[in-house]
Amino acid sequence: MRDLRRSFVLSASAVTAIAALAAVVTVRPALALDPDFATVEAQENAANSKSGPRTVPGRAIPVPGTVSPQLQSTIAAPYRIPAWDADPKSAAEWKDLITKLADAGIAARLEAREKLGVTMEPTVIGGVKAFILTPKEIRPENRNRLLVHVHGGGYVYNPGEAGTGEGTLMAAYGGYKVISIDYRMPPDFPYPAAMDDAMAVWREAVKMQNPRNMAIFGTSTGGGMTLAMILRAKTEGLPLPAAIAPGTPWSDLTETGDTYKTNEWLDNVLVSYNGYLHRAALLYANGHDLKDPQLSPIYGDFSGFPPAILTSGTRDLFLSLTVLTHRKLRRAGVEAELQVFEGMSHAQYNFDPFAPETKEAFTEIAHFFAKHLAQ
Amino acid sequence: MRDLRRSFVLSASAVTAIAALAAVVTVRPALALDPDFATVEAQENAANSKSGPRTVPGRAIPVPGTVSPQLQSTIAAPYRIPAWDADPKSAAEWKDLITKLADAGIAARLEAREKLGVTMEPTVIGGVKAFILTPKEIRPENRNRLLVHVHGGGYVYNPGEAGTGEGTLMAAYGGYKVISIDYRMPPDFPYPAAMDDAMAVWREAVKMQNPRNMAIFGTSTGGGMTLAMILRAKTEGLPLPAAIAPGTPWSDLTETGDTYKTNEWLDNVLVSYNGYLHRAALLYANGHDLKDPQLSPIYGDFSGFPPAILTSGTRDLFLSLTVLTHRKLRRAGVEAELQVFEGMSHAQYNFDPFAPETKEAFTEIAHFFAKHLAQ
Repeated sequence: MRDLRRSFVLSASAVTAIAALAAVVTVRPALALDPDFATVEAQENAANSKSGPRTVPGRAIPVPGTVSPQLQSTIAAPYRIPAWDADPKSAAEWKDLITKLADAGIAARLEAREKLGVTMEPTVIGGVKAFILTPKEIRPENRNRLLVHVHGGGYVYNPGEAGTGEGTLMAAYGGYKVISIDYRMPPDFPYPAAMDDAMAVWREAVKMQNPRNMAIFGTSTGGGMTLAMILRAKTEGLPLPAAIAPGTPWSDLTETGDTYKTNEWLDNVLVSYNGYLHRAALLYANGHDLKDPQLSPIYGDFSGFPPAILTSGTRDLFLSLTVLTHRKLRRAGVEAELQVFEGMSHAQYNFDPFAPETKEAFTEIAHFFAKHLAQ
Repeated sequence: MRDLRRSFVLSASAVTAIAALAAVVTVRPALALDPDFATVEAQENAANSKSGPRTVPGRAIPVPGTVSPQLQSTIAAPYRIPAWDADPKSAAEWKDLITKLADAGIAARLEAREKLGVTMEPTVIGGVKAFILTPKEIRPENRNRLLVHVHGGGYVYNPGEAGTGEGTLMAAYGGYKVISIDYRMPPDFPYPAAMDDAMAVWREAVKMQNPRNMAIFGTSTGGGMTLAMILRAKTEGLPLPAAIAPGTPWSDLTETGDTYKTNEWLDNVLVSYNGYLHRAALLYANGHDLKDPQLSPIYGDFSGFPPAILTSGTRDLFLSLTVLTHRKLRRAGVEAELQVFEGMSHAQYNFDPFAPETKEAFTEIAHFFAKHLAQ
């Protein structure tokens, strides 16, 4: 169906017609009069003339002009190979890939910290490795506030310093001190190691600061873990934070949600569930039911959750997971806000630290925290 | 590329492998082991190996299992022909089509009013035709509140009673009294007739009730007009309502926004900009600049806008318009909330009056109004 890509070759009479139109109003004439459009139209009308699955044509989708040049670069970028479709055959192959990808990210993390004026200090909290990220200036109203960050990466990627990118952005754009948890991951440490580590840090963190002055945030796996932490804190009778920011949360480890199909091949980060993602899910779950609320928190009880802000993008493979989580929070009576960014694939508000949309996303989350955290 | 639609025929060894997997975890084996997947993967990896437009394969996209059976029916429904791709060649042909579609909707409007206990009274306000929609029971806190509804339909569809569907849903699920404006439309009355009528009603409505107790809402064209009304009320020094609900607003009459392309052919309501939509835009604009903020309010100044709640769906052709409008409102410092519904195409929260998602969407908007309107 590649031949259905729109051609912009126009007949002479069409050009005349366009010129007449263009004299009156600003409109994109090639689209209206493109001779190929009628072909696609007839074909799709026929294919979608009955109730059932939707048929869509193969096509090339342009980089949108409605975002910053920096975000355009991120959207235009090729698929992330081998990150998206990695298929390691052994623990050694997983480790090799994970290390390679993590090493490749270090320079960007350092550059972001330097340019944004954030310092990083490795530490151990509750027996778990972590990093303290401190902005050049902690805002006066944030002096007694503390954020806990849970990094993303499908429960396999981003060990160590590689996992600190989002924490750095929040420290910089929000003016908060951030603890970023370097939780254990597969292949050596499958479920529940990551959650055990996150909870161990949380148990200590609430002694370091009043939990009413605290928030937990994270993207993707970090968003799913943020939700699972609240579920587990409820069960264990631990204090809850005053707010959470689960960004495009991996709230369901099974392939559930419409955008797994509608945004498949469009999202240039995750591309498809059937890449590394479902392999990572199985590796992490290690035989546990993928729908256990500690692995897929969307199946948990959201009542009593703290106020939440969720972030996604229109091309995000997890857009459905994000909006399904948002709706479920709202139905549970939780104050929950949603922000969706134009053209972004999965987690891309974390990609370019200097894109205006990145700053906007974190400023919005910081604003939400400022509204809900005590001082 | 139809041959790339996934086949669920599996080899015997694949079935054995699946059985082994299924014993351990719940996973959808056909997707992981589908022999066709590797073909698509290789092809898309190659097509998306360089920076530039994104290439996606032609495919069949299933009806999601993550929504109610009623919404599943709406999502599965065939394209709306001729509504989406109508191409009337004369004013007479436009009128014929508009009347035919409007007549076809009357029975559903009546059924919704009867089942939901809403009464409808035709009236004239400020010289403009309108309908008063009254729920069986106006909630006590809403006794001195009044909502103004601006219907959708691309500035051409839904004259008269056909335009009252959304107003009925808000009256029923919100427990509010609603004025639904039956503004004049092309082909006889292009821009600015619709806006003149809407403003004439608003000018009178603020004498009927305290504007602090009032909200304006509408979907699609009605959402765009809601935004344009606030811009014009600001310019004319008229009182503003206490809140607005521009649902999936047609805030830009040009083909601007990523989901015009990413959700093209997927949205079974609008399908493409290059159907009736751009023809209706030109008919309405009647030679005016499509980017004039009175026609495309996203180009206007949103500062000082009342709190807003925006609604869209993951398959909505106007998802980008909705999120771009939301972001611009937020950047202008306006309190603005976003709700996006799983799997919905354009405006489908208005389609089945009895779907749980319909009730949820309007309950959420009503809740937002309750928070912001004085009593």
